[in-house]
Amino acid sequence: MTSTPSSAAYAAVDWGTTSFRLWLISDTGAIIGERRTHEGMTTAAKSGFAPIFNAHLAALGAGAHVPAVICGMAGARQGWVEAGYLDVPAALGDIVGQAARVPDAGRDIRILPGLAQRDADRPDVMRGEETQLLGALGKAEGAHLVCMPGTHSKWVRVEDGRVTGFSTFMSGELFDVLSKQSILSHAVAEASAFDGTHEAFRAAVAEAIAHPALATNLFFTVRSGQLLHGHDATRSKARLSGLTIGLEIAGALSSTRPGTAVSLVASGPLAALYGAALDAAGLSATLIDADLAVRDGLASAAHSLWPA
Amino acid sequence: MTSTPSSAAYAAVDWGTTSFRLWLISDTGAIIGERRTHEGMTTAAKSGFAPIFNAHLAALGAGAHVPAVICGMAGARQGWVEAGYLDVPAALGDIVGQAARVPDAGRDIRILPGLAQRDADRPDVMRGEETQLLGALGKAEGAHLVCMPGTHSKWVRVEDGRVTGFSTFMSGELFDVLSKQSILSHAVAEASAFDGTHEAFRAAVAEAIAHPALATNLFFTVRSGQLLHGHDATRSKARLSGLTIGLEIAGALSSTRPGTAVSLVASGPLAALYGAALDAAGLSATLIDADLAVRDGLASAAHSLWPA
Repeated sequence: MTSTPSSAAYAAVDWGTTSFRLWLISDTGAIIGERRTHEGMTTAAKSGFAPIFNAHLAALGAGAHVPAVICGMAGARQGWVEAGYLDVPAALGDIVGQAARVPDAGRDIRILPGLAQRDADRPDVMRGEETQLLGALGKAEGAHLVCMPGTHSKWVRVEDGRVTGFSTFMSGELFDVLSKQSILSHAVAEASAFDGTHEAFRAAVAEAIAHPALATNLFFTVRSGQLLHGHDATRSKARLSGLTIGLEIAGALSSTRPGTAVSLVASGPLAALYGAALDAAGLSATLIDADLAVRDGLASAAHSLWPA
Repeated sequence: MTSTPSSAAYAAVDWGTTSFRLWLISDTGAIIGERRTHEGMTTAAKSGFAPIFNAHLAALGAGAHVPAVICGMAGARQGWVEAGYLDVPAALGDIVGQAARVPDAGRDIRILPGLAQRDADRPDVMRGEETQLLGALGKAEGAHLVCMPGTHSKWVRVEDGRVTGFSTFMSGELFDVLSKQSILSHAVAEASAFDGTHEAFRAAVAEAIAHPALATNLFFTVRSGQLLHGHDATRSKARLSGLTIGLEIAGALSSTRPGTAVSLVASGPLAALYGAALDAAGLSATLIDADLAVRDGLASAAHSLWPA
């Protein structure tokens, strides 16, 4: 028997700032269609959310009755429909109850809320990661320290399925603006690909952890190392990457006991880079695939919303 | 008796990355003409250095015999004529002997070299600040810790007129790219002017000094503070400024005894901002005007090059 579009039970969507990912899921939980584009919130805020969403479902041949569950920036104030935040501490399973419904959509579309930490000194927000956490650790017992790398990396404490607190580090964006918009761009332009095994990357992680206060001085050594020692672009870029990730780990470690086990929720090259960085920092990490986690989280939400 | 252009003894030029400043100095040391523009190295590298330089001297009516001494990025590899670096430790008075001469210029034009710290782990460079130091501390006895704020702030150790070591912190550029190119731009756009007395600035300085490892997390709170607590743009910008300057001071303090006296070489709003930040950090600072320091340094070089 062949899966046909008509067997779709629901659509699962991870709609971020710069990316759109949609999976069509059958009633047995199988993926029967997938779309990945760069039509993130930034694009959709200009061209409209509904046209993008409908075009992808139509391209996959999904019927008009198929409902959809969405996580990520589509629920931000500047997104499709604002889905608000659940305040921490919050049980991951409670996210679904706060989903916002897209009005007049013709089908049942729910956007999951983010999480907010309304602390006076350390206010923080996440959108999308809460759904990965629901998939990865929604039913896990015990206390977990979770590292979720990205443009705005999150370090999250989850205890018995509840998020008790979290911190965002803007490592990915910092690396991006320093590599492209600062004096360091001269030193890292035309770098080849590198990975976490690069000696300059590992040394930089250790250096930033040892001397976090010197962060902006260490960043500048990427330029002066090129000028005075002729360091090549790949080494320079690996060093800058190691410094920004090392600074993040130094911050996360500052409120963590040494030897704490870390759950690393990541995919692709970033998973390998952070795995190597955590290793260089002496932390043992268990990798959880971020793609799988978000699909599991969306599936969990779908099963709550539309029980079979 | 009126000073006339014909009484000019020499031209003193501070030619930075984004600024050009020229003073025409009489044989009694008086300023008899001044030009300030944004024709820095970035502009001049495209349009040519000689045309800009000659046009300003002509506008001030300086004769063809008037020599010129220049400091700053005009001596960089991508500048007018590369002036190289003196390696630290270096006596500030020795800068003049390494000046590069601009060939075929019709007049005697010397560009002062920068300083290089050819350390394997902490390579560093400066161009322009060495001339400010020559003016401010070239003949001073004893040990001095000097803070020179800017796009790339320098912290310099000067002992009996010798630079023994220095560190660059890219605070100014970091503040600039984060305010304009990152997610934080939404939180700080349309801010009004603020100064070092702003409570959010002083609190942020103290916070970054207390928790430097959390730097990129603290940066993100500028955004989440706007989202969750409705913090206004001026407060947010003052906070971001305080965080970047505080992080720099934390780094400088990491290799300095508490209570060390600091010489602050700065002018204008930056002088007031760093003065307030050093005060919030519990450091006593003596202000040395940066404009005066660079003119004094160029004068010292001129007197060595062309003794009366």
